Amino acid sequence: MLSKEQNELVTRTGPGTMMGDLFRCYWLPVLLSQELAENDGPPVRVKILSERLVAFRDTKGRIGLIDEFCAHRGPSMWFGRNEDCGLRCPYHGWKYDVNGQCVDVPSEPAESGYAKKIKLKSYPTVEKGGVIWAYLGPPERRPPEPAFEFCTVPREQSFISKRSQECNWLQAMEGGIDSSHVSWLHSGNVNNDPLFKGAGGNKYNFGDLAPVFEVAEAPGGLFIGARRKAEDDQYYWRITPWVMPCFTGVPPRGDHPMHGHFWVPVDDENCWAWSYDYHPVRPLTKEERAAMEAGNGVHCEYVPGTFRPLANKDNDYLMDRQAQREKREYSGIKGIAIQDSSLQESMGPIIDRTKENLVGCDNGIIMARHRLMRAAKALAEKGTIPPGVNDEHHKVRACAMLLKRDVAFKEGARDALKAEVGRAQTTV
Amino acid sequence: MLSKEQNELVTRTGPGTMMGDLFRCYWLPVLLSQELAENDGPPVRVKILSERLVAFRDTKGRIGLIDEFCAHRGPSMWFGRNEDCGLRCPYHGWKYDVNGQCVDVPSEPAESGYAKKIKLKSYPTVEKGGVIWAYLGPPERRPPEPAFEFCTVPREQSFISKRSQECNWLQAMEGGIDSSHVSWLHSGNVNNDPLFKGAGGNKYNFGDLAPVFEVAEAPGGLFIGARRKAEDDQYYWRITPWVMPCFTGVPPRGDHPMHGHFWVPVDDENCWAWSYDYHPVRPLTKEERAAMEAGNGVHCEYVPGTFRPLANKDNDYLMDRQAQREKREYSGIKGIAIQDSSLQESMGPIIDRTKENLVGCDNGIIMARHRLMRAAKALAEKGTIPPGVNDEHHKVRACAMLLKRDVAFKEGARDALKAEVGRAQTTV
Amino acid sequence: MLSKEQNELVTRTGPGTMMGDLFRCYWLPVLLSQELAENDGPPVRVKILSERLVAFRDTKGRIGLIDEFCAHRGPSMWFGRNEDCGLRCPYHGWKYDVNGQCVDVPSEPAESGYAKKIKLKSYPTVEKGGVIWAYLGPPERRPPEPAFEFCTVPREQSFISKRSQECNWLQAMEGGIDSSHVSWLHSGNVNNDPLFKGAGGNKYNFGDLAPVFEVAEAPGGLFIGARRKAEDDQYYWRITPWVMPCFTGVPPRGDHPMHGHFWVPVDDENCWAWSYDYHPVRPLTKEERAAMEAGNGVHCEYVPGTFRPLANKDNDYLMDRQAQREKREYSGIKGIAIQDSSLQESMGPIIDRTKENLVGCDNGIIMARHRLMRAAKALAEKGTIPPGVNDEHHKVRACAMLLKRDVAFKEGARDALKAEVGRAQTTV
Repeated sequence: MLSKEQNELVTRTGPGTMMGDLFRCYWLPVLLSQELAENDGPPVRVKILSERLVAFRDTKGRIGLIDEFCAHRGPSMWFGRNEDCGLRCPYHGWKYDVNGQCVDVPSEPAESGYAKKIKLKSYPTVEKGGVIWAYLGPPERRPPEPAFEFCTVPREQSFISKRSQECNWLQAMEGGIDSSHVSWLHSGNVNNDPLFKGAGGNKYNFGDLAPVFEVAEAPGGLFIGARRKAEDDQYYWRITPWVMPCFTGVPPRGDHPMHGHFWVPVDDENCWAWSYDYHPVRPLTKEERAAMEAGNGVHCEYVPGTFRPLANKDNDYLMDRQAQREKREYSGIKGIAIQDSSLQESMGPIIDRTKENLVGCDNGIIMARHRLMRAAKALAEKGTIPPGVNDEHHKVRACAMLLKRDVAFKEGARDALKAEVGRAQTTV
Repeated sequence: MLSKEQNELVTRTGPGTMMGDLFRCYWLPVLLSQELAENDGPPVRVKILSERLVAFRDTKGRIGLIDEFCAHRGPSMWFGRNEDCGLRCPYHGWKYDVNGQCVDVPSEPAESGYAKKIKLKSYPTVEKGGVIWAYLGPPERRPPEPAFEFCTVPREQSFISKRSQECNWLQAMEGGIDSSHVSWLHSGNVNNDPLFKGAGGNKYNFGDLAPVFEVAEAPGGLFIGARRKAEDDQYYWRITPWVMPCFTGVPPRGDHPMHGHFWVPVDDENCWAWSYDYHPVRPLTKEERAAMEAGNGVHCEYVPGTFRPLANKDNDYLMDRQAQREKREYSGIKGIAIQDSSLQESMGPIIDRTKENLVGCDNGIIMARHRLMRAAKALAEKGTIPPGVNDEHHKVRACAMLLKRDVAFKEGARDALKAEVGRAQTTV
Repeated sequence: MLSKEQNELVTRTGPGTMMGDLFRCYWLPVLLSQELAENDGPPVRVKILSERLVAFRDTKGRIGLIDEFCAHRGPSMWFGRNEDCGLRCPYHGWKYDVNGQCVDVPSEPAESGYAKKIKLKSYPTVEKGGVIWAYLGPPERRPPEPAFEFCTVPREQSFISKRSQECNWLQAMEGGIDSSHVSWLHSGNVNNDPLFKGAGGNKYNFGDLAPVFEVAEAPGGLFIGARRKAEDDQYYWRITPWVMPCFTGVPPRGDHPMHGHFWVPVDDENCWAWSYDYHPVRPLTKEERAAMEAGNGVHCEYVPGTFRPLANKDNDYLMDRQAQREKREYSGIKGIAIQDSSLQESMGPIIDRTKENLVGCDNGIIMARHRLMRAAKALAEKGTIPPGVNDEHHKVRACAMLLKRDVAFKEGARDALKAEVGRAQTTV
């Protein structure tokens, strides 16, 4: 449970907010590389942290991420012509380079130097692992580049998608660090989804419906361990890493690819759910990739031509009461992505956390919220660089493993929780 | 005409409002029985008096009407699984019975007794005459069960429907106690609708377009009499009962079934128009029932799969100017339900009653408003139980009859205005 | 650049605003004549300057423009029956004549004289050139009738359309007095549109992309001249008249019909773009008229049954990136009307003018804004009748001509800028 003030603090990320300033310490995913597929291709609207921007890839392949609106009289640069190393406003021909610098104001004499005085807000980007990342903070604090394993493995080992979600980022992310709901909401999927089924560990999920949660601090965030009873004197551990502010991993199942999410605020009532799959040591198979493209696993189907899920709140998420009754889909909703989004969106745009009743399995959520609030305050009050900015903090992995009951998971899983080139995931 | 303050008082029915407290003294219709057709069937969202609830029928046929949102972290229980005497949230498996009592929190040890401490808001319901009624007030004031004749006759004698209307409940209900508009807006229907036409009294409606209105206090509300000149020294009286806060009857025509409405606030800008037909002493004929199902009489056609009228403000109510020109439909809109809703919605979500110009035929409306306001104030100031709560107040009937001109309608129609088992309606 | 207060002043036109009072000094186009095609035909909703009205043509052909809502209990008179010299509310039969005077309240005895006491707000109209004009100001200031050339030539010489635009009127009109954008945004059209192409002057548009702007005061507003270099020691001048508050002309091309616009506020976030074409001395050809009806030139295609453009913000204006790339359509949007509306709507409902960066080619815009603000203040403070009210001020024309470089355009184009019966436009 949070106070009204705490709930405001932790959910609002627009310019000038404390949580907004925190987010502006990190590289955040903004576009899939294929959204800016070619040099001089169409620009793309980007809304992030309540800022309206436009992205384009210029003639030389450089990426610009600049204010959406022309500095002259304000039309959207989304209508711009992407030509000869710059984006030109079609209204009066003002042209900007990837840094937002105005390089041409045709109505003014070149010798006046007028264009030089005009500069749109722009943010640096970096392209890694099929994702275009942006940093929206002050230049002097620019952090090292993102080093999450999913974006550093060879491209044939990963698959990345995104979908829009119509609620605040935090209630979406809270689903990502809450493994206790898997045994309920996603119970049908564990056995049926081609990207989950057949793993030896699955049996433990249903053998013990009251997992015990333990949360440990990590340099960049948290490790959230859920243990279930296993044979002999062992526990089946599923351990979820959370890297501040909004990266989460899902513990693996068998040799299936690993997956997880980034939860990025669009504005205070919308977010992007980024979903990645990768295998640390081998290419994805053709079948795996096809299953992901079809919306299996953590991915989804879309309204054609958009990143909006096909099953959404306007169609009650294609609720199938018969499937619910038969527990083919526990909530009647198909696919784990939409199972999550349907419930999270049903809470309203920003859930009122003064009315919650939290229990033991919410410890990861409780600790993450407080870590976020503490870091935001330390940043505001003392300029403290928050956890997770350091690229070494990114090099974590989810894992699933059996441990003797007297072994603390942080000890037993120490190596398993590290991302390491050439070493396979630790899984059951 | 009302002052701004009076208009606020009489239209706002959310929690904590004076009119909202008044409504919370009564049983109100919330669902058709067929919306919860079977035990363990799908739950249904209910919004009433600005409260968001969910209804379900459990394994034993009991009906629950509880807070829409799970007490844990707030997803909508509409997604819940209705199973084994309770509704289970698909997120983490919290389960509630029909009283809103939490009966299972799977992640907590049963012996902790945690579930017992969790209870969702819930309201009692009663099922009568094909309608599920709810009482949203304090338990100590729970009134006797509804006893309106339409819900106490055998089911083969009645037909009940509902439609959503996109305006405040009061401007909808004011149409229901305003019989002066029938000669204009509904003039086409009186002669053409299979459920109205052929009655001997219809000729008087068009023989005297300036009826005189007399309003008499009734124990539970008002009797609103409209008299028109008839043969010899008689008047043709049509008398409309209003039972507080929002029940109305329509005077009958010949031996057609009797009908009327309940006008129930969804929130301050939307309401349900409930429409009932029944015959006091005989089953509805197959033809009558078919006509009602087809949207004749006080009923309507729907957008498939919803209770929204097919003719609605997004399609200008399927206005037919040619029909208007030819007076086949006086306003060009088909069917009396939509004729009413089109005009009432056109006033805006909440009509500004400071700008009205009321005349003699609005006396019923004027008196009803003041009765509502007086009752709301007496309840707020002295805790006075308002009229209409007593089930004896429900036992009224509309009637149509010829009376000698020197007879006061309240005397002449005394018996005709009483609902009495086994006695036919008084009609012309 | 304007201050926040100036931007509010110049954009808000509802009742009681300074700019609203200014607009209420003028005749404004409200409907096409064909929207009220026949006597006793269907009434039409009119929203203008944030007032909601309904228009109808009565039995004798007179036009009424009255408050949309019945004085009794407030339903929309759009549902009214237009019959026997008046519009009758279908709810209770109250009837109003074209002056808003209530002429019948059926429920009240005729001898009571009640109807006479009821009068709806109404505004005078005049029909000219296929347009119904209204004056919304105080009767004592009623100006002479509109005398713009497009509405005084014989009907076979003109074609008039309108389209809705989803932004404040001023940012729409600013496009109309900004000829510098033609060389960019509309560059494809000058050579391809059947209503523009082939004119001898077109070559100058592309021969000099940095036109110099000179603005001269006119009795009713401004003349905005754009000069481009031409052969010998000549300039190619294109001169745009602006008549207060919102009439603009487009300089002609060859012998094509002349065109221009009226920009009329619906409310503060929507406007009507009226578009006219006419030839001063000859009928439009069949081909010209067909091209206009097909949406060429300054006109557009519509969502069927509406005046909303087919290409609108809900479909990203049917952006065609391939056409943009090939410069067939410079911005990728088809047609100059939608090229303009797409960019103007993309600025948001009311552009924030505190953030602009204006340059030399915006001088016309700067002067028009200040002229509007000065006139609004003079009206408010001293009751000064503003420019453009006088019908002589309407008799202006756009022109395109070659002038010696040492000739001031206001001298050289003096006659060309006057509308004169029987004299062709001055054009190149």
